[in-house]
Amino acid sequence: MPVGTQATVKTLTPAQLVEAGAQMILANTYHLSLQPGAEIVAEAGGLHHFMQWPGPILTDSGGFQVFSLSSLRTIDDDGVTFREPRSGSLVRFTPEYAMAVQNALGADVAMAFDECPPYPAERSAVERAVTRTLHWFERCLAAHRRSDQALFGIVQGGVWPDLRAHCAEVLASADLPGYAIGGVSVGEPGMLIEKVVRVTAPLLPEHKPRYLMGVGTFRELAQAAAVGVDLFDCVMPTRVARHGSALLINATGDRRINLKNAQFRRDFAPLDTHCPCYTCRHFSRAYLSHLVRSGEILAMTLLSIHNIATLSRFSAELRAAIIDGSFTQRFAAYLQPEAEVERG
Amino acid sequence: MPVGTQATVKTLTPAQLVEAGAQMILANTYHLSLQPGAEIVAEAGGLHHFMQWPGPILTDSGGFQVFSLSSLRTIDDDGVTFREPRSGSLVRFTPEYAMAVQNALGADVAMAFDECPPYPAERSAVERAVTRTLHWFERCLAAHRRSDQALFGIVQGGVWPDLRAHCAEVLASADLPGYAIGGVSVGEPGMLIEKVVRVTAPLLPEHKPRYLMGVGTFRELAQAAAVGVDLFDCVMPTRVARHGSALLINATGDRRINLKNAQFRRDFAPLDTHCPCYTCRHFSRAYLSHLVRSGEILAMTLLSIHNIATLSRFSAELRAAIIDGSFTQRFAAYLQPEAEVERG
Repeated sequence: MPVGTQATVKTLTPAQLVEAGAQMILANTYHLSLQPGAEIVAEAGGLHHFMQWPGPILTDSGGFQVFSLSSLRTIDDDGVTFREPRSGSLVRFTPEYAMAVQNALGADVAMAFDECPPYPAERSAVERAVTRTLHWFERCLAAHRRSDQALFGIVQGGVWPDLRAHCAEVLASADLPGYAIGGVSVGEPGMLIEKVVRVTAPLLPEHKPRYLMGVGTFRELAQAAAVGVDLFDCVMPTRVARHGSALLINATGDRRINLKNAQFRRDFAPLDTHCPCYTCRHFSRAYLSHLVRSGEILAMTLLSIHNIATLSRFSAELRAAIIDGSFTQRFAAYLQPEAEVERG
Repeated sequence: MPVGTQATVKTLTPAQLVEAGAQMILANTYHLSLQPGAEIVAEAGGLHHFMQWPGPILTDSGGFQVFSLSSLRTIDDDGVTFREPRSGSLVRFTPEYAMAVQNALGADVAMAFDECPPYPAERSAVERAVTRTLHWFERCLAAHRRSDQALFGIVQGGVWPDLRAHCAEVLASADLPGYAIGGVSVGEPGMLIEKVVRVTAPLLPEHKPRYLMGVGTFRELAQAAAVGVDLFDCVMPTRVARHGSALLINATGDRRINLKNAQFRRDFAPLDTHCPCYTCRHFSRAYLSHLVRSGEILAMTLLSIHNIATLSRFSAELRAAIIDGSFTQRFAAYLQPEAEVERG
């Protein structure tokens, strides 16, 4: 799922996003609650109509932003109070408020309001976060008002397998329409992300979507798919595009190139001769390099199209390989533990 | 002609530009000579291929930028030396250099290198500029190397009708494929632009394209079309779009709205219910207002699409009204002298 924080996947029209192969997107409850405000989105007929996205949408609960963006915050068992960085005003998020906002936004999937501890964190702090996350989940379930919106629970537990297992077990017993693995990609090394996912994913019901939040790279997607994860979101493909970089992948691996590098000034080949995206069908690396060097916005748009198309295609290939039984062989390069990759 | 200074009409893909109704675009010789450099564009197969624009392209000569952008410049009869603001390096433009660059860029129309005096300017300075412009034109004609590229001459002469007439007469005798009126919209009041155009346009051959450089508004287009001008270029529609404004026009007149204004926050109508552009078919003013307030790039893209579509449609309506004989009646509101409009 490409990330559309402010009800827009940055620099792209919905038409460009569809053409790039995006199916489902994510929007941010925290940001939309501040601007334009949930009531305006509701008056517009909900998020799909407001931003004209024809496919499914998932809204996060705001938990991640509340815990990661705001420096001045006080957490109590009832919710979180924090100073909004832009306006300086005090804002309070509770499970009930997060659900009310998400019900108003009207995405297809709403997320429970959780406490997302950073990495590193004391075990006692993560234990407390798990307890709160489970307690808040019950309140989200009670506050949820729309039967046309799926509510996913979020597994926390940091890097402690027993805390993850406990959280997953309690949530799984609620028979939800879907489950997320939260609190990863919050600063911990890649090996630990993989370990947490490997431990947590199998504890979640097999026939419900499993969503790994805030991940990731080609390798992270393949590793997580291997243990049964179905959904991902990440700002990476569009963020690196806005900084002038393209994601490339072929049979032997993936890499990231920065179009500002001098070697691309006279490189008249497309980013990827095998990529069917609008950018690769039309433009050369030399042109993209020129746009990046000129500070032209079209560079961000064309690179975002390519990066989303590349990750969408990679996801489709993971899916196809699972179905035809070639997954383990085809993605072998991505499936070794990271340490071995580093040794190689 | 929407303006594509750096070989991109800012924030838009060629596909979006075509859908908005753009037919011919302009690119800037000065900017492209500095970045990526004319050789790279030539190696890419020329500007059309480099930027993937399927329609005709016109390149200006660099004269306007050389005379308006650079503070440190010395003009002699052979050319202009100036300090490039970004790199600080000294650059020299001569008629021969401007033609060599334009031949390398390979647009369909190249412009002669002229001296474009500012407003206000002493009559003696404008006289000298006309003499140089005519002299440099001869050198451009001699230096021009491509028979597949039309070379347009540029009429200078400031606000002095006799200087305009002299310059137009000499250029007209060269039987060029097209002619431009330059040195307007350089700081003079609107009434003077109209007067200069009214005096100059009829002096240029009727069956050759007449191009009014750097203009303009709906009113300026209608006024100039009334005296026989065929081609225009202006950064206005895309520049105001990047500042959050939309151009609106209906039977009673035109106006500009800034989507940042509070009144649009809950305005769920499109910019213009009669506009068939992608933006108006899909998005509300409330959504555009949200994007502008959030600083989202998509606001610039969607407003640029609408503004170009609106000016393209207006141009098409001017053309249709000329053909069916309804021009004077249909555009009456735009055809009174500006002073009367102001009194009314």
